[in-house]
Amino acid sequence: MQLNCDLGESDGNWQDGPESQVMPYIDLANIACGYHAGDPETLQRTLALAGEHNVAVGAHPSYADRAGFGRRSMSLQTTEIIAMLHYQIGALEGMALCQGLMLSYIKPHGALYHDMMASPRVREAVFEAVASYHRALPLIMQATARANAHRNEAQSVGINLWFEAFADRRYADDGSLLPRDKSGAVLDQQATLDQATQLCREGTVTTASGAALTISADTLCLHGDNPEAVNAIAALHALIHSR
Amino acid sequence: MQLNCDLGESDGNWQDGPESQVMPYIDLANIACGYHAGDPETLQRTLALAGEHNVAVGAHPSYADRAGFGRRSMSLQTTEIIAMLHYQIGALEGMALCQGLMLSYIKPHGALYHDMMASPRVREAVFEAVASYHRALPLIMQATARANAHRNEAQSVGINLWFEAFADRRYADDGSLLPRDKSGAVLDQQATLDQATQLCREGTVTTASGAALTISADTLCLHGDNPEAVNAIAALHALIHSR
Amino acid sequence: MQLNCDLGESDGNWQDGPESQVMPYIDLANIACGYHAGDPETLQRTLALAGEHNVAVGAHPSYADRAGFGRRSMSLQTTEIIAMLHYQIGALEGMALCQGLMLSYIKPHGALYHDMMASPRVREAVFEAVASYHRALPLIMQATARANAHRNEAQSVGINLWFEAFADRRYADDGSLLPRDKSGAVLDQQATLDQATQLCREGTVTTASGAALTISADTLCLHGDNPEAVNAIAALHALIHSR
Amino acid sequence: MQLNCDLGESDGNWQDGPESQVMPYIDLANIACGYHAGDPETLQRTLALAGEHNVAVGAHPSYADRAGFGRRSMSLQTTEIIAMLHYQIGALEGMALCQGLMLSYIKPHGALYHDMMASPRVREAVFEAVASYHRALPLIMQATARANAHRNEAQSVGINLWFEAFADRRYADDGSLLPRDKSGAVLDQQATLDQATQLCREGTVTTASGAALTISADTLCLHGDNPEAVNAIAALHALIHSR
Repeated sequence: MQLNCDLGESDGNWQDGPESQVMPYIDLANIACGYHAGDPETLQRTLALAGEHNVAVGAHPSYADRAGFGRRSMSLQTTEIIAMLHYQIGALEGMALCQGLMLSYIKPHGALYHDMMASPRVREAVFEAVASYHRALPLIMQATARANAHRNEAQSVGINLWFEAFADRRYADDGSLLPRDKSGAVLDQQATLDQATQLCREGTVTTASGAALTISADTLCLHGDNPEAVNAIAALHALIHSR
Repeated sequence: MQLNCDLGESDGNWQDGPESQVMPYIDLANIACGYHAGDPETLQRTLALAGEHNVAVGAHPSYADRAGFGRRSMSLQTTEIIAMLHYQIGALEGMALCQGLMLSYIKPHGALYHDMMASPRVREAVFEAVASYHRALPLIMQATARANAHRNEAQSVGINLWFEAFADRRYADDGSLLPRDKSGAVLDQQATLDQATQLCREGTVTTASGAALTISADTLCLHGDNPEAVNAIAALHALIHSR
Repeated sequence: MQLNCDLGESDGNWQDGPESQVMPYIDLANIACGYHAGDPETLQRTLALAGEHNVAVGAHPSYADRAGFGRRSMSLQTTEIIAMLHYQIGALEGMALCQGLMLSYIKPHGALYHDMMASPRVREAVFEAVASYHRALPLIMQATARANAHRNEAQSVGINLWFEAFADRRYADDGSLLPRDKSGAVLDQQATLDQATQLCREGTVTTASGAALTISADTLCLHGDNPEAVNAIAALHALIHSR
Repeated sequence: MQLNCDLGESDGNWQDGPESQVMPYIDLANIACGYHAGDPETLQRTLALAGEHNVAVGAHPSYADRAGFGRRSMSLQTTEIIAMLHYQIGALEGMALCQGLMLSYIKPHGALYHDMMASPRVREAVFEAVASYHRALPLIMQATARANAHRNEAQSVGINLWFEAFADRRYADDGSLLPRDKSGAVLDQQATLDQATQLCREGTVTTASGAALTISADTLCLHGDNPEAVNAIAALHALIHSR
């Protein structure tokens, strides 16, 4: 089970979380591409850090919305989505290559990720962008009950999917995440560890109703933007590598 | 003598000049990279057009200044200049590769170009950015009396220079261009043609004082953002190819 | 019947339509506030021009989306909409006061205007922003079959509405505009004049199906971004003032 | 001696310092205007907080440079500087009036402040912007050996100046601040308190060379973006009010 984490989300004067502390414990660094965060020097530093720790790097593109940190949905044409994804992936890829690194995957950020999961039209646009990029790169999507359907859609355009589960978010019975504003939606450190352990060992999560839900995931998404979160990541890393 | 022209400088709702009319007559398309102009769909369209006409494409990066169209100097650290150049070149390169095109060169835009010519510190930063990009790409600079010094500087960091002359601008005796706000600084169509002819045939321009100045250029820069300019480019193209 | 027109929509290097030619013929200038277009110098020039021609000025605020010219819907919180409207209106008001002009009204732009018409939540946010601005300013909305309901909503929060009709767009039977991508959605100059005449004289439009639809409007919206449009505005002005 | 502090410098997802802790101890809140930081909701919150604590609010406008937090000089035309200052001041003034607050002064931010102190052309532009704003507002400048000359310049265009000293920065003998990258340039909490005490009681600072330099200031600038800085402000407040 690979651990992935959103990184490179500083922006100029504004410094995000303790990246150097997170990097030793993760496998996949989802690196911002400048549209919701990530000035070029931040990208450069984050790529260098990933390289030092042998962490695979992925593009973490977004809607063009720094003011909203990419968390606000925007209604774009399919052609706009494709072009802006190529632009962002290309920018990060160019910077990665300057450090001898290759991009390994693509994971959309924030509202674009949510829209990809919720809207067939946006998903189709993202799939087409990945399919028409000049190199084959897998796309990370959320592992849901629709995973097989998504895999079929992806195969029909010739792209690979990696599915991810969320260690620190409570699931509903239908496999969706409880909205952040619901009580209990975000797990504390111990509950995060418990859920991650259960995901790794049994391939299930315990939903808000207490039911066991099967989640077949290639990678676990974690957040690393505060010291407690870093502790959780370190503990998870130890847990996975002690198996 | 190759003709180069700045293109891809539309931005969302704002459409720039008649690119499809210019493309048949030029050899090198300097394509904006999104920092002074050039939304991703514009870049995509411009790259496609260049591909159709077998025009070589180069990155035309800028200071991050859409409001000022990249014409306002900004005081950046060397590290910022390098990172933002890698970001922009990478973005355009990624989009070019999606269409089966390779970037052929780099030509900075506007105030960044002027600062590169005027300030040793900015020039060094640009040279270092080109030298540390993951592929060797030539850099276009203005052909001036300091061309040999520039070539030596470039060789010391291992990059190639292409020198350009300006067909539609009046030169001063020292090889600089008359400032745009000086009377006679911008040549009309006939004078542009005459200067280009003289540059191609004799390798000289007639300066504002009437003197003949030797300019050794690899490429001629033209502007193509209005119908008269397009006519001048077409005429120049005919002139060069009739030799 | 007052004529209103969107103006101040240049942006830095990109120059929009022939404002000085439109200004003599209109009553209300909807001036961009910098979020979809309108750099500060453009606003200053447009305000000055409106002042010279005794044209009333209104704020034309937008979603923060220059890349999309404010035509892309964004999902914002109510509090974000209110704050960003106050910011934009305040900016234009400050600049207007520097020239001795007072803002007379507010008319949202593009996707924000459409969302205000289509979404009760966005409309409520816009109404609340207008109601909580420090000066009472009327809000321009589209005259539809729901005009009375809108007027009631507006009265309940203490704001005034001005209703507008569109001279150059074909109406459907339900009072909505045909989408721009439908054939016949945008009227030519003669049809624009005919529809405007009918609106002024009889208070009706002829819909796409040929039916007569009553539209009770305070102001007519026109576009002035090309020479033919300017001719239509001039003709309309003559028509109205000849009555 | 009034204490002033830069506030409202959060931006969307990125939260700046502990404003609610600083506000009780200061007299003047320099509030960002959206060009280097300060999304509209941040401005709204900061204005509300200032209102609760009866802190006077001033506009803290900047070059349009979020990526560089307004710390990078940009070469703008005089007309651009004037227009962008009116835009920013108007935006903040509109939002302040919505909360029943009046702006009390203007203090440029970052590189614009430095350029105003260093470049006669930029200073003239800023003075003209303040003079042509629709209300008379004092301008905060650094107290230097040239204060009388600056006051004369200001009087000639009809504006008032407030002079500020820096509590937490070491002065050179010529009244300039040691550059931030020089050792000892930024004072620790105790040295800040000592310098502030000396400024309040004796109107002097001890320069890097050990000399006593007379500084005649109306207000002291402090930074409040971290807990230690907040402690220094609280201590200074106590010191001033115990006199």
